[in-house]
Amino acid sequence: MVSKNQIKLITSLHQKKFRSLHGLFIAEGIKVIQELLTAGLEIDFLYETTLIKWNHLKIEPTLITEVELKKISALATVNNCLAVFKIPPVQKINENGLILALDTIQDPGNLGTIIRLCDWFGINNIVCTEKTVDLYNPKVIQATMGSLSRVNVSYITLATFLHKTKLPIYGTFMNGENIYKTSLKKEGIIVMGNEGNGISKEIEKLVHHPLTIPRYGNLQLTESLNVASATAIILSEFCR
Amino acid sequence: MVSKNQIKLITSLHQKKFRSLHGLFIAEGIKVIQELLTAGLEIDFLYETTLIKWNHLKIEPTLITEVELKKISALATVNNCLAVFKIPPVQKINENGLILALDTIQDPGNLGTIIRLCDWFGINNIVCTEKTVDLYNPKVIQATMGSLSRVNVSYITLATFLHKTKLPIYGTFMNGENIYKTSLKKEGIIVMGNEGNGISKEIEKLVHHPLTIPRYGNLQLTESLNVASATAIILSEFCR
Repeated sequence: MVSKNQIKLITSLHQKKFRSLHGLFIAEGIKVIQELLTAGLEIDFLYETTLIKWNHLKIEPTLITEVELKKISALATVNNCLAVFKIPPVQKINENGLILALDTIQDPGNLGTIIRLCDWFGINNIVCTEKTVDLYNPKVIQATMGSLSRVNVSYITLATFLHKTKLPIYGTFMNGENIYKTSLKKEGIIVMGNEGNGISKEIEKLVHHPLTIPRYGNLQLTESLNVASATAIILSEFCR
Repeated sequence: MVSKNQIKLITSLHQKKFRSLHGLFIAEGIKVIQELLTAGLEIDFLYETTLIKWNHLKIEPTLITEVELKKISALATVNNCLAVFKIPPVQKINENGLILALDTIQDPGNLGTIIRLCDWFGINNIVCTEKTVDLYNPKVIQATMGSLSRVNVSYITLATFLHKTKLPIYGTFMNGENIYKTSLKKEGIIVMGNEGNGISKEIEKLVHHPLTIPRYGNLQLTESLNVASATAIILSEFCR
């Protein structure tokens, strides 16, 4: 059973301000929760509608009904489990290798997919503008499929960071250099822009190497790629 | 104003069986609707909460309130317009160049993103298993950002189609040939598998060239790429 106070606490964690206030976030689904447990994140509560075999679980799970799970879940389609984890301390940005910089990504699904891509390509650091969607948004957590435990995401003043770095700065634009014909370094910062507006004017000035993914479809009509698709192609080009 | 009968008709179009029954589908948002109008699709109704300047619009739009729009919208966050279009007749599959084959993609956002990717890379034909999510699902329409008017999507018995084709058949697996080291033809069929289960056993047998996107992250832990991300990387490799 979930108490009224717990329902109140957990549903408050659907919102960023209460996640910051309590230092807690929620994760749903076996795969995501198990990955976070394996990574050693500290768990506060675990609710499940059926008995699940967990590894590295140090607390007692609470068996609840599907109706109760629906009350606390942040997802449109509920899973069979929900956990409350402590938000881990922010790690230091490691300035070597490739770093992905996000200039205000707004869609939680996009951020989650991008984290999963970084995990795949062995990119350990993501830096984001402070307006980028919150890492601990339940939909972001869901889309990462647990890979957020292996990628360090930092919210920073991006312009200041780019001003100070000694790494080459790449960015994707509509009229940059053809990415398939550019020699790409194994160290550097790759900036990806907002879903609607691309890279902001302030950040654009700081980019040393503007890049473009050439399009092969109808040049008049196809307007843009989804930012997660563009990130997939860019990271593949840098790593191949 | 929207009449009760129209509300009933439009909300019924959120479901596939009623879309098939009426031969109609809904599209929301200026960008998507304008793209479909420009492509010459036949429009039946257009509702807007504010006066919008349209091109190629041959009917009179109906001004409605936001409350009314919420009643008929299929999206969690409503836009400022919603249109009802006639489902266009299915086109013949053009068997040359590259064709993307989807072995039961279930997530509407993934199908929409994949259609947008095909549009970008100039791939005009997608063939899907009959269990693949419906092209006219409102969330698919939304994620395509209008590019569905330039990509021909056919629902077929995929195994039969692959049996008959003379084109080389590529497919993505966990243990195929490194895609970065394989010579890829400009003609062929590329099979992408289901989100959870990958390519089915039946289809796997028909693939001539199993391919893999190598991973650079922690080999033990990173389990898979999202299918839309994988499609982005594969299409980029075939077209670059």
